Amino acid sequence: MPPSPDLAEFLDASRQRVNAALDRWLPPADEPPRRLHEAMRYSTLGSGKRLRPVLVYAAGSACGADQSVLDAPACAVELIHTYSLVHDDLPAMDDDDLRRGRPTCHRAYDEATAVLVGDALQVLAFEILAGNEHMVATDALRVQMIRELAVASGTRGMAGGQAIDLAAKGSKLDLPRLEYMHRLKTGALISASVRLGALAGVASAGQLDNLAQYADAVGLAFQIRDDILDEEGDAEIIGKNPGSDRASDKPTYTSMLGMDEARRRALQLHEAAIDRLRDFGPEADLLREISGYIVNRRR
Amino acid sequence: MPPSPDLAEFLDASRQRVNAALDRWLPPADEPPRRLHEAMRYSTLGSGKRLRPVLVYAAGSACGADQSVLDAPACAVELIHTYSLVHDDLPAMDDDDLRRGRPTCHRAYDEATAVLVGDALQVLAFEILAGNEHMVATDALRVQMIRELAVASGTRGMAGGQAIDLAAKGSKLDLPRLEYMHRLKTGALISASVRLGALAGVASAGQLDNLAQYADAVGLAFQIRDDILDEEGDAEIIGKNPGSDRASDKPTYTSMLGMDEARRRALQLHEAAIDRLRDFGPEADLLREISGYIVNRRR
Repeated sequence: MPPSPDLAEFLDASRQRVNAALDRWLPPADEPPRRLHEAMRYSTLGSGKRLRPVLVYAAGSACGADQSVLDAPACAVELIHTYSLVHDDLPAMDDDDLRRGRPTCHRAYDEATAVLVGDALQVLAFEILAGNEHMVATDALRVQMIRELAVASGTRGMAGGQAIDLAAKGSKLDLPRLEYMHRLKTGALISASVRLGALAGVASAGQLDNLAQYADAVGLAFQIRDDILDEEGDAEIIGKNPGSDRASDKPTYTSMLGMDEARRRALQLHEAAIDRLRDFGPEADLLREISGYIVNRRR
Repeated sequence: MPPSPDLAEFLDASRQRVNAALDRWLPPADEPPRRLHEAMRYSTLGSGKRLRPVLVYAAGSACGADQSVLDAPACAVELIHTYSLVHDDLPAMDDDDLRRGRPTCHRAYDEATAVLVGDALQVLAFEILAGNEHMVATDALRVQMIRELAVASGTRGMAGGQAIDLAAKGSKLDLPRLEYMHRLKTGALISASVRLGALAGVASAGQLDNLAQYADAVGLAFQIRDDILDEEGDAEIIGKNPGSDRASDKPTYTSMLGMDEARRRALQLHEAAIDRLRDFGPEADLLREISGYIVNRRR
């Protein structure tokens, strides 16, 4: 199912918007240290899906935020996501050669550069959220965004999920533990994307809570779809080697549930996500469509 | 020259204070993911000199800050410093086995854990600065501290310096380029330590400027002393293998200037640092003594 014309337009506009902001805020490739700056741009700019920025813009719109205050959080979540990909791809971690259809950072450059690229992208996310020129928002709001992004990225979020994932290689996780791992590893940042967008729109506590639960369901659905695509996918479309998760003995939804049950579970989560938006009117239609897009995407 | 009784007491008290705060704010070792949390504590807690927290407390005191608002910036700069050590020690970077007198993180645990430890320590620094429970300070001040720490850690600071250092291995840097590298690699964070302490004391722009120049001189003097200790030192005292920088073909002040000239230059920088404090009264005596301590330290 291709995205609707409205959604397709929004996805395009969001991607262009965040790509332009990233290009503007990443250090220029001709500024020393050049190799590092070039590698940061190589890893960040390009063909990413930009799902997390899209969620920032969509959640912000649902809460009435102006697009201009959403660029900083949109860039910040994408920089955190990109840094995690660069480090997770390292030989000591998942040892991947291909990412977003191109050689991984440590393949295109070298391992030391890839470590530094990840480190520098992570801190750039916080520099942007704290930067004077980057956002029209109150200091109180910035501090809250920084806190939420930091928690979502740390050991009670993304980094913790990666540690659990690494420890689980070759062992059997049961379904609750697999879900727990994914809630940390990818769910926390997806949820933070929705929450940062909502915060920029000065959402009420009730709205924030519903949106967080929407994000939680969408985050898990995204991961299940990832596993399905990894199982059935085409390297050219998904941008990495298909079956690589299974080959590396990582526990996946598809290996645990089978393809049919995995698909059914993704659809259930989509319905749960939609249900969480019941107090919103048409201003949340994009969020509704994004949820459907996530469980049906081909890459 | 041993530190004066006053300085010795201050150094002890500052170390105890920051160690207690780090112990409180690092995730507990028995909270999952346990291996990651344990490795974060292994790398952070222990026998570090805590120079950067000491500078936060001393600069804060010089500007009249209450000690209680200095714990968060003191922890933050030490966490950034520790993460950089963990990543710099990785096989793909400097490949060191010994740090602070113990096996490096990737030796005591494994490379993947060491990558995650560095990532998680970096983000914890920002979580603490943005955390509700961590500091009595205005949101505006927090945002400024976060911005300064982010810039000092990124490619225009510490991470950039490490990239230049890696690229320089086996080549000849001239003195200006060696200084430029150190200004980024260690100077930026030392300078940020002084500035964060001063900010917590709500320093004037003039005070901040003088303190930043004090920090700049102290940071370079610290690096020259490091090179001298590496050349003449004793592994048991300095906590790493002596001569390891020279052996790895890294450019150093001692290899470039000779020992005598390196010592003379360190003393000149000490005098420049003291001169920068001329508008301060006795409230800056600790900063004066710390500068002397840095150029005379045995470890």
